[in-house]
Amino acid sequence: MTTTADTDLSESVEETAEAIATMETRGAATIADAAAVALAEQARAVDAADPEEFRATMRAAGRRLYDTRPTAVSLPNSLRYVLGRMEGDTVGQLRSSVTTAAADFSRRLETAQDELGRIGANRLRDGDTIMTHCHSTDALSCVRAAVEQGKEISAIVKETRPRRQGHITATELRKMGVPVVLIVDSAARRYLDETDHVLVGADAIAADGSVINKIGTSGLAVNARERGVPIMVAAQTIKLHPDTLTGHTVEIEMREEEEVISADERAELGDLTVENPAFDVTPPRYLDAIVTESGQFPPESVVTLMRELFGESATRPWEE
Amino acid sequence: MTTTADTDLSESVEETAEAIATMETRGAATIADAAAVALAEQARAVDAADPEEFRATMRAAGRRLYDTRPTAVSLPNSLRYVLGRMEGDTVGQLRSSVTTAAADFSRRLETAQDELGRIGANRLRDGDTIMTHCHSTDALSCVRAAVEQGKEISAIVKETRPRRQGHITATELRKMGVPVVLIVDSAARRYLDETDHVLVGADAIAADGSVINKIGTSGLAVNARERGVPIMVAAQTIKLHPDTLTGHTVEIEMREEEEVISADERAELGDLTVENPAFDVTPPRYLDAIVTESGQFPPESVVTLMRELFGESATRPWEE
Amino acid sequence: MTTTADTDLSESVEETAEAIATMETRGAATIADAAAVALAEQARAVDAADPEEFRATMRAAGRRLYDTRPTAVSLPNSLRYVLGRMEGDTVGQLRSSVTTAAADFSRRLETAQDELGRIGANRLRDGDTIMTHCHSTDALSCVRAAVEQGKEISAIVKETRPRRQGHITATELRKMGVPVVLIVDSAARRYLDETDHVLVGADAIAADGSVINKIGTSGLAVNARERGVPIMVAAQTIKLHPDTLTGHTVEIEMREEEEVISADERAELGDLTVENPAFDVTPPRYLDAIVTESGQFPPESVVTLMRELFGESATRPWEE
Amino acid sequence: MTTTADTDLSESVEETAEAIATMETRGAATIADAAAVALAEQARAVDAADPEEFRATMRAAGRRLYDTRPTAVSLPNSLRYVLGRMEGDTVGQLRSSVTTAAADFSRRLETAQDELGRIGANRLRDGDTIMTHCHSTDALSCVRAAVEQGKEISAIVKETRPRRQGHITATELRKMGVPVVLIVDSAARRYLDETDHVLVGADAIAADGSVINKIGTSGLAVNARERGVPIMVAAQTIKLHPDTLTGHTVEIEMREEEEVISADERAELGDLTVENPAFDVTPPRYLDAIVTESGQFPPESVVTLMRELFGESATRPWEE
Amino acid sequence: MTTTADTDLSESVEETAEAIATMETRGAATIADAAAVALAEQARAVDAADPEEFRATMRAAGRRLYDTRPTAVSLPNSLRYVLGRMEGDTVGQLRSSVTTAAADFSRRLETAQDELGRIGANRLRDGDTIMTHCHSTDALSCVRAAVEQGKEISAIVKETRPRRQGHITATELRKMGVPVVLIVDSAARRYLDETDHVLVGADAIAADGSVINKIGTSGLAVNARERGVPIMVAAQTIKLHPDTLTGHTVEIEMREEEEVISADERAELGDLTVENPAFDVTPPRYLDAIVTESGQFPPESVVTLMRELFGESATRPWEE
Amino acid sequence: MTTTADTDLSESVEETAEAIATMETRGAATIADAAAVALAEQARAVDAADPEEFRATMRAAGRRLYDTRPTAVSLPNSLRYVLGRMEGDTVGQLRSSVTTAAADFSRRLETAQDELGRIGANRLRDGDTIMTHCHSTDALSCVRAAVEQGKEISAIVKETRPRRQGHITATELRKMGVPVVLIVDSAARRYLDETDHVLVGADAIAADGSVINKIGTSGLAVNARERGVPIMVAAQTIKLHPDTLTGHTVEIEMREEEEVISADERAELGDLTVENPAFDVTPPRYLDAIVTESGQFPPESVVTLMRELFGESATRPWEE
Repeated sequence: MTTTADTDLSESVEETAEAIATMETRGAATIADAAAVALAEQARAVDAADPEEFRATMRAAGRRLYDTRPTAVSLPNSLRYVLGRMEGDTVGQLRSSVTTAAADFSRRLETAQDELGRIGANRLRDGDTIMTHCHSTDALSCVRAAVEQGKEISAIVKETRPRRQGHITATELRKMGVPVVLIVDSAARRYLDETDHVLVGADAIAADGSVINKIGTSGLAVNARERGVPIMVAAQTIKLHPDTLTGHTVEIEMREEEEVISADERAELGDLTVENPAFDVTPPRYLDAIVTESGQFPPESVVTLMRELFGESATRPWEE
Repeated sequence: MTTTADTDLSESVEETAEAIATMETRGAATIADAAAVALAEQARAVDAADPEEFRATMRAAGRRLYDTRPTAVSLPNSLRYVLGRMEGDTVGQLRSSVTTAAADFSRRLETAQDELGRIGANRLRDGDTIMTHCHSTDALSCVRAAVEQGKEISAIVKETRPRRQGHITATELRKMGVPVVLIVDSAARRYLDETDHVLVGADAIAADGSVINKIGTSGLAVNARERGVPIMVAAQTIKLHPDTLTGHTVEIEMREEEEVISADERAELGDLTVENPAFDVTPPRYLDAIVTESGQFPPESVVTLMRELFGESATRPWEE
Repeated sequence: MTTTADTDLSESVEETAEAIATMETRGAATIADAAAVALAEQARAVDAADPEEFRATMRAAGRRLYDTRPTAVSLPNSLRYVLGRMEGDTVGQLRSSVTTAAADFSRRLETAQDELGRIGANRLRDGDTIMTHCHSTDALSCVRAAVEQGKEISAIVKETRPRRQGHITATELRKMGVPVVLIVDSAARRYLDETDHVLVGADAIAADGSVINKIGTSGLAVNARERGVPIMVAAQTIKLHPDTLTGHTVEIEMREEEEVISADERAELGDLTVENPAFDVTPPRYLDAIVTESGQFPPESVVTLMRELFGESATRPWEE
Repeated sequence: MTTTADTDLSESVEETAEAIATMETRGAATIADAAAVALAEQARAVDAADPEEFRATMRAAGRRLYDTRPTAVSLPNSLRYVLGRMEGDTVGQLRSSVTTAAADFSRRLETAQDELGRIGANRLRDGDTIMTHCHSTDALSCVRAAVEQGKEISAIVKETRPRRQGHITATELRKMGVPVVLIVDSAARRYLDETDHVLVGADAIAADGSVINKIGTSGLAVNARERGVPIMVAAQTIKLHPDTLTGHTVEIEMREEEEVISADERAELGDLTVENPAFDVTPPRYLDAIVTESGQFPPESVVTLMRELFGESATRPWEE
Repeated sequence: MTTTADTDLSESVEETAEAIATMETRGAATIADAAAVALAEQARAVDAADPEEFRATMRAAGRRLYDTRPTAVSLPNSLRYVLGRMEGDTVGQLRSSVTTAAADFSRRLETAQDELGRIGANRLRDGDTIMTHCHSTDALSCVRAAVEQGKEISAIVKETRPRRQGHITATELRKMGVPVVLIVDSAARRYLDETDHVLVGADAIAADGSVINKIGTSGLAVNARERGVPIMVAAQTIKLHPDTLTGHTVEIEMREEEEVISADERAELGDLTVENPAFDVTPPRYLDAIVTESGQFPPESVVTLMRELFGESATRPWEE
Repeated sequence: MTTTADTDLSESVEETAEAIATMETRGAATIADAAAVALAEQARAVDAADPEEFRATMRAAGRRLYDTRPTAVSLPNSLRYVLGRMEGDTVGQLRSSVTTAAADFSRRLETAQDELGRIGANRLRDGDTIMTHCHSTDALSCVRAAVEQGKEISAIVKETRPRRQGHITATELRKMGVPVVLIVDSAARRYLDETDHVLVGADAIAADGSVINKIGTSGLAVNARERGVPIMVAAQTIKLHPDTLTGHTVEIEMREEEEVISADERAELGDLTVENPAFDVTPPRYLDAIVTESGQFPPESVVTLMRELFGESATRPWEE
């Protein structure tokens, strides 16, 4: 890989890369959009002698952006979407294909949460009670749309230790006028008898149909299945993890023990280990539907959507 | 029911009843023992003209004690054990049968935890990792005995929200020299892959084989079964709930919301409900063995032991 | 086996045998009671020279009664209960043991349905909805007792083809003031989501914990388990089938095809077979509790009760 | 939406719409075909000044037809298939694309049942016994093809209360020379032990892989899975419900109580409710294969076929 | 423990102990019987000054016998049965109780296999096909009895690597006239579709209802449950392992690698490990019934029989 | 079908057909490649007057090759891939499309095993233990790639009766430096507790997601699911069986009984049947992922890949 070519990248790409690397630009959708925009600006800026030079520059731009946060699932998706659609026989055609793809991607992204919200809302009936785990704006978008459709929805909100993002979810749901019962995570099975749908988001979705989400999701899903309660995952397609198509597993982040136990408590407990994994993996057989802006899918079929949007092959379009 | 007779009860019964009622005497084993001792002293004290008067007085003593805390499972067990063994044709024989039964009951009680610990320990192999939920001295007794048998045991300790009794368990296990990994409750399914036995206590055990224990036990048990990890319940026989023989369900206590959320957080979250059930019910099909001081039993068979120890019939021996 | 001895049987035994054989005496409880009464009268009537002659006569009486309907589960239970308790060294002791056992048996029988009703009712909570299959007075006794305890109970009643005994159940429930929703059998799974308990009776209960009941019970139980709805069987102990202790299976009656299809419809359909099995077998793993007048039991434990009441051995006390 | 444009619709569209609305045109395939034909005739008839006017007219024709029975799954599929393939830069190209698509759709429809019959038949082996529920010409087409392949097939036919369409199925099977055993619905689990394949049709198939079919299908499927018997759904692709792609659930029709109980019986039973849902929903995990004229699919994959045939997007091609 | 007392043991005890230790006396039933006979002879031989001396001698005899093969499950059962029934106030009464218990035990043993055979046979119907694993005379006794009852039984015989005891089973079944299909172990799931009952023996049965039997039993049982085929364990009560009542697990023997692979093959394969465990453990939830000479039991109830026959307490009657 | 045209086939097609028919050319990949090469040579050789003649000749070549071994799954896949991509309006275009498709197919084939190996390896983590069944070079390719990635992998190798191909697998694994534990097939469930992934190959994969592989795979998969161990199938896309798209089932070969039992042993055992099926069918719900050179797929989605590669329709491109 010749990094020399990288020096010719547009200012836009450099700034975007910097902003992502320093985490100034954060959040799955924001990062993905910034990358698409940067690629479009690069395409407009590049003054290539021939199609091959254009392609090489675009790939270099892709690499520059990719290398800032290779584990963020939405970033490579953005690059794959845009660069995977680069085609043409002339520099003009290539440029046009890139800017069109970038615009398409941004437009999808802009409406994705609302779209999936409307789709997820259609699965809910008037009078339903949902159970939530952690905090997901995609999941809340489904509830919001249902409320806007005039449905009465109630919620049982798991607090979601260690960070108790359930408090944020509860606050958001109250703003929509949704009655909330707050419970500790361990009480979930008992309250599943009063639940019509479990509704969660996703941090990433794998090609084998499994869903990576906040720790506790898989245990909840197993119990929901046992209790006969359907479980729906709300997630934009930028959460579909293309690396998993080639078998890669998603690395589970281990977070600070301070989230689990205060320094004082820790001192008292003495010589023990605190482990704080951020996510877990739920197999597809415990999930009923994944709701995206492209429609709902059984988890076992989401690989088809992943291939359609982000490419079927294992090769990365930014690699030489 | 003539309550007049109750005025003739011995000082011991009155004092014991008072102490239980005011919660001066607390804890399942302590209450059960105090009641048995009081009945024995009543038997020694009573100056009955004939067997029937003796019986009537003993039943009155039973009623006096029972009425102090009718929902405490160990108290009626104590009364059933002692009064259910009252038999004979003379006052002397009756008295002797009561004092013998009371002494037997106390002796069983004294050694029960150690006995069941040794039995539970036999299920554990050298090198095993257990997972605990909440804090149970019966469960810890199994680990202690295993350590005393020279086995190396490790523990994964769920913190057990809302009161985080897992911290007590962690401390106790560390005192025994058992390495501890502390996790939030939601991380349980992930750590079941590293667990050889789930080990919990019980607040009460029902005739249909279901186990009432700290909220979260049932969800853990469902996941343990799904992961192929055996789950063992350690509980003295005073936890066998004789009322359940006649179909009674065990009332689940709803506790203060302050355990779940501080007053300040509460104020911020606004108009929502916090529910804090103390216990849940695990069906027998998710449990592998109940370990008591009388041996281990599949949960579906524990009704036999219940009938043997505390009587087969629905009638309560202290009723007229 | 010398049938000569049978000629000496008391009038009571002969009349009872005749009445059972001609089906003048019908119904599990009625037959069982009649047999016990006849044995008691035989014991009073017999003028035996020695204990052995007394025993031989009683066995002959047992055989006479047994042979009238060897497949009726309650009849051998009655004989086993009474003759299994025949003991003593003198004719007087033997006679007394038989009459006492017969009286005990009749007394149990008289109160059994009420007793089990109260026990089953304790499993139901105020506001619960039950689902019924076929018509069972034992099952209805549980609902009646619950209503008498002041609980509000609703019912979803399966019509129970082919004979639609659900109509009788619906009528009986309406008399108790229980709101009823009547559905076809195929609609059961859909309505399980609104059901708190499935409540059925039993025609016979086997030593391996399986329950023989009206065709359709097993399919309902499998679905109830899948939907997470507990299922309770209400049955007097005379339904415990002692032959199954020795591995015998319960013969399933095939009934008339006219119950399934009218003669006219039949003629139109032409050359096909109509099969109409009366019962099916539900394995214990799909049942939560068997409620008897002796308390509730997990199905896997009911063999213990069977042995206690009707004898542990495979030998029949009326055989030579 | 300007309804003015609708006044210019061709006579064919108006007549077809009228016939569907008055239920003169009935049956999923007949409705679908009529709509496609009407669109083709509209395309031929329209005298549009420019492509946009042509498109607008066709959309108006689509709306006119759609509004006659918006809940009939085959009607929107027909419209989606034809209008979704309308493309071109000139009125001529547009017209040609519509008439070609309409002809393709009609041709598929004409052979669909035979095609899927042959495919379904390939799953059956010589000597197999099938179990049927309700009456489905798609399901019967599989049996017919198997018989034509020379396989000996036997059938266990559930009567399918309340309307007992099993009688029609039995008659049809007898015409093919297939030996039939007729049973009540409740006997299904017992006869699954003698069944090699459960074979049912579908009223609609959802994007999440669940199948909407005659009430009782889901309970049968759960039992078939428990007994280890594979279950196959035979359904033409016009049963794939495109609204479900966007999360819409399929409304379950509640039918007349007279189907369940005669007026006289009703009068006798008094104050109770009779509920008569026509369909239920079977989750994909209880189904082994969906057989269509485009091949067989695991239920979890059928969404791919739905998107391929009837469009991937949530937007309806007849909307403005 | 004073081993001095042991020198006074009867010749019979010494010889029996020697024969068991040298494996001259072999086989579960043979060992158990020899021990009971030796205890009876010891009881007759002892010339005790007082009851306490008699008891001490008998305990010493028990210890002497027990120490020869403490892991053989039938030996301690024999000792428990006989010494657990030793009771009386005089040496004469004590002696008599021991000799009676020993005779009872021997008599039970003599008929046990035939008795359980008849019981197991009752579970089989005419025309049934069984599947066997390994070689068990208890299991074959059920087939023999069924054949003697006039039932036609067929068998699918798993060869049971590594020692292929299935060949012995096949030979024995052929002698009974039972048609045999021999298959490799891996083919079991395929042939379960043609199997009515899986029928196996047991090496030991634990108090928690799990069954220790030839390696491969548990995998077969899991598949039998998945295919809906009932599985029956045929085992005499001497296989009930009393140590498991106190939680002890049964040690699984690791056998010679030569059983798995010949020395020549081994040499060729080079540096790898061959593991050859003799048994595995099947949890009770995968078994339908345990057939003993005392009747059939759900595996979850067999602990009751174990306590009844061999004592309820954890203490061993031969210990000081 | 005019077989006359077949006489004009190129030498290459004739020789290839002969070699496949005589099994000189063997192995799924070798056969598939030879067929593609032969088609390309035929395309180059043919001197067609018009496009239709070219097409007819190519179809005839396809038929000639297909008829040599119609049950070999890779052969029709090769023909479908190449002939399904034949398109164009002139002979030149047609020829070019065929030679390009053939070259693509060969190139895919050449790298397929390495590609899928890298993908499968990504599912394995450092330190994992795999369990294998039979011998599969596709499965071993995953292990090899994992080892090359620097991961430490251990293996538990089932011997895989009757032919014990596990010995080959063990040898191959040892060559890679992978530590091996060899076990008999029946020991699998016990060792699943020490297994992180079950890894098998496939003989064929069906459109309904089921996998046909060496006898014993399905029983292993059921146990792996029960023990919570993921199971991965490694298979090149030439194993996707296009006939199954149209419902065809895969014929299971019955092999020689000599593989199961030697002639001498056979003679001794006498009159019994030995059955030796080569393969069994594992339903998709017991498999976690199918790893191909095109990425990994849940088994329920593999039909999409099958349609993409080998054609969506039931018609065979070589038929007239």
